[in-house]
Amino acid sequence: MSLLVVGSVAFDAVRTPRGSVDRMLGGSATYFAVAASYFTQVQLVGVVGDDFGEEHHAVLKERGVGTEGLERVPGKTFFWSGEYNADMNERTTHDTQLNVFADFHPKLPPRYRRLPYLFLGNIDPELQSLVQEQMEKPDIIGMDTMNFWIEGKREALGRTLRKIHVLVINDSEARQLSGEYNLLKAARAIRALGPETVVIKRGDNGATLFRDGEIFSTPALPLEEVHDPTGAGDSFAGGFMGYLATHRAEARDGHGLRRAVIYGSVMGSYAVEAFGLERLRRLTRKEIDARFQEFKNLVHID
Amino acid sequence: MSLLVVGSVAFDAVRTPRGSVDRMLGGSATYFAVAASYFTQVQLVGVVGDDFGEEHHAVLKERGVGTEGLERVPGKTFFWSGEYNADMNERTTHDTQLNVFADFHPKLPPRYRRLPYLFLGNIDPELQSLVQEQMEKPDIIGMDTMNFWIEGKREALGRTLRKIHVLVINDSEARQLSGEYNLLKAARAIRALGPETVVIKRGDNGATLFRDGEIFSTPALPLEEVHDPTGAGDSFAGGFMGYLATHRAEARDGHGLRRAVIYGSVMGSYAVEAFGLERLRRLTRKEIDARFQEFKNLVHID
Repeated sequence: MSLLVVGSVAFDAVRTPRGSVDRMLGGSATYFAVAASYFTQVQLVGVVGDDFGEEHHAVLKERGVGTEGLERVPGKTFFWSGEYNADMNERTTHDTQLNVFADFHPKLPPRYRRLPYLFLGNIDPELQSLVQEQMEKPDIIGMDTMNFWIEGKREALGRTLRKIHVLVINDSEARQLSGEYNLLKAARAIRALGPETVVIKRGDNGATLFRDGEIFSTPALPLEEVHDPTGAGDSFAGGFMGYLATHRAEARDGHGLRRAVIYGSVMGSYAVEAFGLERLRRLTRKEIDARFQEFKNLVHID
Repeated sequence: MSLLVVGSVAFDAVRTPRGSVDRMLGGSATYFAVAASYFTQVQLVGVVGDDFGEEHHAVLKERGVGTEGLERVPGKTFFWSGEYNADMNERTTHDTQLNVFADFHPKLPPRYRRLPYLFLGNIDPELQSLVQEQMEKPDIIGMDTMNFWIEGKREALGRTLRKIHVLVINDSEARQLSGEYNLLKAARAIRALGPETVVIKRGDNGATLFRDGEIFSTPALPLEEVHDPTGAGDSFAGGFMGYLATHRAEARDGHGLRRAVIYGSVMGSYAVEAFGLERLRRLTRKEIDARFQEFKNLVHID
């Protein structure tokens, strides 16, 4: 079943203890779409400038991602530059140039409006609402947000949150949004704002899912080499939503959601093994399932 | 089977966001012994001053902990004062008064020398070696250490590490000891120093066990209230070693060690629910097994 993602497509400059890249394809919608493409048909709505070349388009096309909704306008594509130190859960932003993204107003191609699965990537909550209004009645709406919108657009964010099913955010955002340090209390407070399910990503400390009367937690897989954590959270969301989109019957029950968290973790773990999309775009379904099994073995108790 | 622990018995002054206590019984050996006492007979070797009263002794006695090796000498008991902020994985030490602990030279009562299970609490590695030399041939020797000894007594620490089976330390100590930030590499480097098994405690991010060709990880149980993390790591070690001491046949295989990590996590999770030993000393085996099941449910995937 087709999954629609609306979010940023960007160029990133990234430095980590394992190296640096001056300019590579990135953006939350890009990572999400590539990760989700291993599970389901994905349609991407976003905007790029005229520096977005055929080679960049090819990354999406080779994964079968629909780009009918990827607007191309005069100007430069969104650019982000940042750096990670040894603790890759923390990053420093050096530069953010919104460029063509500053005037982004998502317009859905008419045939996208009936898609059953929607993910609202980390963009202005007013734009997220705009997308919600254009959709007929998706089965599942997932969403991400960040500190910038939590601080500056809380009211708009509140309106968006009321009409989604799953919020996928990281631990510091969950704390900021709820005003609660304790994650159990933070998740409860966030669920009271709308989403029946909250998934809290904790970087290399794993992820935890909260819903009515149920908590599920997975550690991260200890990895030999972490090259670049950029996009890990978006890849997690892509694996999570991608799995749900192909398991409609399970998508609202605990077992399906648990498996979706593991598939999200699998995609996040692959994403960090190389810079940018290099590892993520060259996966096989066999590798994905093998790592799913590694996650099961990691926590297995007789 | 009897488990011997050598380590500190102390009074602690602790402040956390949930309250403060000016003086309460603590110390690594105390937390360890109380936690392990729910699984096996524990003998404690340590030293206290003449401010250690009958009411403190009673905490150990009520849990059946043997105190034949708890020396009482003139002077004051080891005192530690510290504070935790919202992120209870980090603490600030305000005061450390070694007092009678400064001249501690562990002497094992003769009948302790043949005990099959030994835990070397976080004390000077030269004293840890002294204890190892007095023991005949324990089946399993577990050990803890800390930044202070890693910095100041690395050579002595190296000698102690060569003759133990399991090192139980936290993530920052594992990084410092190994010089590796990546925990997979850190554990491998530490295992090359002696211990066949390394258990890395990660506070409210769970714990991970590394041994030959095997990794096991558990998230922490999300808790409604964390009052005081003091002694959580020692309680973890107590649950871990206590379980192994009563499951001799499993103690060297992966399944037994995995269960031991969960029992360690169970004891750590109870320890933080109240200040000092208040929750830990009043547990039932039924509560312990119920929480073991909660840990299993937390990570369960169909």
